[in-house]
Amino acid sequence: MKIGYLGPKGTFTEEAAIKLKKFEKCKLLSFDSIVEVLDAVDKNKIDKGVVPIENSIEGSVGITLDLLAFEYNLCIYREIIIPINHCLITNKGVKLSDIEVICSHPHSLAQCRKFIEKLGLKIRSFQSTAAAAKFIKGKLNYAAIAPKRAAKLYNLHVIQENIQDYKNNFTRFIVVAKRDHEFTGDDKTSIVFSLEDKPGRLYEVLKEFAKRNINLTKIESRPLKLGLGRYIFFLDFEGHRKENKIVDVLDAVSKKTHFMKILGSYPISKIYESNSLKK
Amino acid sequence: MKIGYLGPKGTFTEEAAIKLKKFEKCKLLSFDSIVEVLDAVDKNKIDKGVVPIENSIEGSVGITLDLLAFEYNLCIYREIIIPINHCLITNKGVKLSDIEVICSHPHSLAQCRKFIEKLGLKIRSFQSTAAAAKFIKGKLNYAAIAPKRAAKLYNLHVIQENIQDYKNNFTRFIVVAKRDHEFTGDDKTSIVFSLEDKPGRLYEVLKEFAKRNINLTKIESRPLKLGLGRYIFFLDFEGHRKENKIVDVLDAVSKKTHFMKILGSYPISKIYESNSLKK
Repeated sequence: MKIGYLGPKGTFTEEAAIKLKKFEKCKLLSFDSIVEVLDAVDKNKIDKGVVPIENSIEGSVGITLDLLAFEYNLCIYREIIIPINHCLITNKGVKLSDIEVICSHPHSLAQCRKFIEKLGLKIRSFQSTAAAAKFIKGKLNYAAIAPKRAAKLYNLHVIQENIQDYKNNFTRFIVVAKRDHEFTGDDKTSIVFSLEDKPGRLYEVLKEFAKRNINLTKIESRPLKLGLGRYIFFLDFEGHRKENKIVDVLDAVSKKTHFMKILGSYPISKIYESNSLKK
Repeated sequence: MKIGYLGPKGTFTEEAAIKLKKFEKCKLLSFDSIVEVLDAVDKNKIDKGVVPIENSIEGSVGITLDLLAFEYNLCIYREIIIPINHCLITNKGVKLSDIEVICSHPHSLAQCRKFIEKLGLKIRSFQSTAAAAKFIKGKLNYAAIAPKRAAKLYNLHVIQENIQDYKNNFTRFIVVAKRDHEFTGDDKTSIVFSLEDKPGRLYEVLKEFAKRNINLTKIESRPLKLGLGRYIFFLDFEGHRKENKIVDVLDAVSKKTHFMKILGSYPISKIYESNSLKK
């Protein structure tokens, strides 16, 4: 089994992909972008792909949602949630006061905004946290924000852990495949839909869930790309699409939406310990 | 009147700020970040501030929403919507085939993703489109994605216009102030709220709008920063908070939410022509 992930090595996505080894024997392959991971699954070059979809502080990863909604007919096979420990990483011997520029992925920079402002550092964006860590190698006035594992990979030094502005910082990753997961009894379903441009339409859809007492775990709007004010909605709720109650609600919702796509049913994730360094 | 905006000169936000001169005599001041603009309004260093809030392709600007919801008690005084014309900008004499690296703000890079992939270019992120344009000066294998105005400011060359992947690319900017706008008869109101963690709560809130036939123009969820699955909602709807029907719905909604804040009422914007070069 080949599993692709948003690389390079040393990112939080690799950490999520490593968790998959608990479930199945697999070989991990690193890809340069989210679209390349999804494309490789679509073209059967790999069996599954791991990409980030949502962070508890920064919100959704727009590109992942858009690709699932508009460009690929892929399913969500599993979700993986890991706590994010942003580390301040430097070359060995560098002190906090030596740092002038801080490098990381824009999401990580945003999650550590207050920390960075307090130190008055210049920021520089990179494609991944690991690319930022690699870049600072040998540059004594630079620091990177990246996972612990990146420090180990590039022989750098962690000078402070958990520098993110908010506690409760988790990222949810999804495992994308050609089919979704079988029923386990503790499942979640993800759908995406758009509405006619009339008042009260979203209310009508949510009513179908409320009257069946189905718990929504996520609602997210994204632009429909037809101009401002037109949205596509991503909804996650408890239950598997093979359960009667869910079959029923999906049928009702499909009648009240302009477009609806079932992204898949899959087991509800526990939160995993972030301990990839021990592996 | 002093008006601050997310600079530097040559960004789309400056273009939006220039539109304000239609409404009032003002002096424009450039700031380095969204938080600095809002902070200057809060501390009475400037009268108003212009920041981006939403793009029709990329979605909301998370930091603007978060600062309004969690960190400042500021009002939305006006909205400004402009069409986005992403230009491919190079040094004079450079051909498309010479370009190896493309530089821009992450949002602009995302909006031109397919264009960039087709050319197989390496990407590099900058704090603003204008900073990217400034950076490529004299670098013959580099191009920037930025507004026309940036090419003029830095004496560069536009080799292709409207390179964004989707038509209907508009950005909505807000003018932030200490108070909102008086009633004009063609207004919109923005609120932000959080809900108790029980099924059906969002449905209950939307019901209040549906039963009064109030048109929602935007709904957006953002993480509440208390862990995955807890959200704060941003809602825009037609009407001014001084109209009876709106007073009534706000009262009903405040009783059904855990927390609610009125961000302000302001005139509904037309879409402005993007012609700042002519100014």
